[in-house]
Amino acid sequence: MLRSEEKYLEIKEDNGVRTLILNHPASRNSLSLKMLESLLTNIKKDEDNKDLRSIVIKSGLEKVFSAGHNIKELTGNNENLHKEIFETCSELMRAMTQSPVPIIAAVDGIATAAGCQLVIACDIAICTERSSFATPGANIGIFCSTPGVPLVRNVPKKIATYMLFTGFTISGKEAYEAGLVSKVVPNDKCEEEIEKITASINMKSRSVVHVGKTFLYEQLDLDILTAYSLGTEKMINCLKMKDAQEGITSFIEKRKPVWSHGYEKN
Amino acid sequence: MLRSEEKYLEIKEDNGVRTLILNHPASRNSLSLKMLESLLTNIKKDEDNKDLRSIVIKSGLEKVFSAGHNIKELTGNNENLHKEIFETCSELMRAMTQSPVPIIAAVDGIATAAGCQLVIACDIAICTERSSFATPGANIGIFCSTPGVPLVRNVPKKIATYMLFTGFTISGKEAYEAGLVSKVVPNDKCEEEIEKITASINMKSRSVVHVGKTFLYEQLDLDILTAYSLGTEKMINCLKMKDAQEGITSFIEKRKPVWSHGYEKN
Amino acid sequence: MLRSEEKYLEIKEDNGVRTLILNHPASRNSLSLKMLESLLTNIKKDEDNKDLRSIVIKSGLEKVFSAGHNIKELTGNNENLHKEIFETCSELMRAMTQSPVPIIAAVDGIATAAGCQLVIACDIAICTERSSFATPGANIGIFCSTPGVPLVRNVPKKIATYMLFTGFTISGKEAYEAGLVSKVVPNDKCEEEIEKITASINMKSRSVVHVGKTFLYEQLDLDILTAYSLGTEKMINCLKMKDAQEGITSFIEKRKPVWSHGYEKN
Repeated sequence: MLRSEEKYLEIKEDNGVRTLILNHPASRNSLSLKMLESLLTNIKKDEDNKDLRSIVIKSGLEKVFSAGHNIKELTGNNENLHKEIFETCSELMRAMTQSPVPIIAAVDGIATAAGCQLVIACDIAICTERSSFATPGANIGIFCSTPGVPLVRNVPKKIATYMLFTGFTISGKEAYEAGLVSKVVPNDKCEEEIEKITASINMKSRSVVHVGKTFLYEQLDLDILTAYSLGTEKMINCLKMKDAQEGITSFIEKRKPVWSHGYEKN
Repeated sequence: MLRSEEKYLEIKEDNGVRTLILNHPASRNSLSLKMLESLLTNIKKDEDNKDLRSIVIKSGLEKVFSAGHNIKELTGNNENLHKEIFETCSELMRAMTQSPVPIIAAVDGIATAAGCQLVIACDIAICTERSSFATPGANIGIFCSTPGVPLVRNVPKKIATYMLFTGFTISGKEAYEAGLVSKVVPNDKCEEEIEKITASINMKSRSVVHVGKTFLYEQLDLDILTAYSLGTEKMINCLKMKDAQEGITSFIEKRKPVWSHGYEKN
Repeated sequence: MLRSEEKYLEIKEDNGVRTLILNHPASRNSLSLKMLESLLTNIKKDEDNKDLRSIVIKSGLEKVFSAGHNIKELTGNNENLHKEIFETCSELMRAMTQSPVPIIAAVDGIATAAGCQLVIACDIAICTERSSFATPGANIGIFCSTPGVPLVRNVPKKIATYMLFTGFTISGKEAYEAGLVSKVVPNDKCEEEIEKITASINMKSRSVVHVGKTFLYEQLDLDILTAYSLGTEKMINCLKMKDAQEGITSFIEKRKPVWSHGYEKN
């Protein structure tokens, strides 16, 4: 199934995977307000549908993932527009974290500024060796403050400051070394890696993954003992889920699990 | 000295080093309630003995460090047992952090789920190249929520999510790159590396290491300025310790220090 | 321009870059109280001068960056002196973070204990391959508690504990892998790399970099949603700055920006 959404995103839905393809060549896939709204809509759309198991964000352009905010929208004394852009962007980041399914960035090209932020905001990120990443906003007077928020929480501080203060580009391999992406693959292996990941998610219970994702982000800013204590509570509750008991039983019985993908307790 | 503890752990004590050897082949060293209790007992046992200087946790099995919780104990509507398991597990993690001596994981094999969590809960972790790590709980309906707690605090978030959402295995080398272990060594060099580490700890004052370990974990969740301020206070107090002054004096006099291993002030 | 500051630091000012050269061979550039005060003075001095765009900290000695605190100052029952040393050291760390310009460590040699802390306290750190880093205080009775504060916030916990509990040295390459430094370069390329970095900072608006640096550290200990929310506010305000609008306009007009380096709103 293939349908086009305005002229910003192409959307495919296939075998549990919704693929959002950034496709706005004129602005190098810039995260204009329209693009941000389109992403937000398509992340949240039908999110409780049991047939939706993961979301992939990639680019339809060669060599470019996304160039970040649309600079033309940031000119002049236009506080209301600026506010709407940055709030929509934050709302998108929040929606990605709150989505019940894992969101995976498939990067093959350059991702800069808010484009780099979008990659980091995904749950998992894969890039090719020829990909590159930068937060060069300060070059044109706009320090990458909001991209810096997830950047410095995902890579070593010394890498984040190097990127933010110099604006220099790091390679796909360096991005992997820094932890900006989960894995770097040869240029022709991105699709294959994404398929492995989405297939692995398809094999699992949707509700188990959802509950796990929610807790993962919920406990992130707690001190470790409080997090363990909350985790203990969650584990005990999760074990009451029908899908948890089906998983355990099927494992012991050496058969494939049959998931309900629901939240019912046993 | 060698004695066996039930049938879960073998324990050696030699030259200041207590070695806890996971040894339950039938369950692939699973962290059953009995195993957890046995670890907890032997971490805390006689912990203020000045002759105890470090604890090493390793496996007595070939190729397996630990397979995580014992799945058979997680079946059914057994909330009380489940609660006891996860609370004992959290209590073990806490006891490891609070132990006065450094605890070192020596991994040569696969460590999954709570087995991976156990490795991360050690102060230092060494693994061989052939080792591997995974948090694949979601495959059988139990998202690795509690293993995720230390995982996401020790490796880049993108690596933690990749492991948690896919269940895929990472190699010893990848684990080192991610910071899950302190060092990866050739398959035949694990023992040698552990000996270097325990020897380096034996050379130090036990009380100085204890006070340092306590502060390290105490300040972990503070903002950096509060941490510096607390650290300044600790440094000034530590300098009053007899062993601190003995260390400094011996350094200036170019002789070996003679430690009391006690907490007395000068 | 070259002038000498007491006998601890040599200071150069050239093309927007202030270079502080640690130069106290007798103590291997130890961070004695005098050295700390001298660093503090020269970090803060004239800090609002628009011609100052970055500060580089390096060593004038071959093979040694800094050996850490001056051990001779830590002897005896000298609480007042000890307090002054550690408080000055913390004040220095704070001043570096609050400096309006990026501070860059250029390391070619060994940096230990508080010397290692000084490197981490810089915004950006570059080292040569032959450089090395250690926090071996516990060897002489003084656990590196304060160096541990930034260490464990910049490198994976398992690397920090390995360094703190063993006192072992890690190489320049390992320091890069751990994120302790931003980049490791061949032994003869340190100066070239530093020039690239300072030149990239010179090309930017001083005030834009300042505002960006301030926010980066301000939001570091917030939970991510609060940080995004604060970041959104900052971005909207920054866009009102004259230099932001000049940057954006010059970008659209495909010409070089002409910065005011000031904080005026458009």
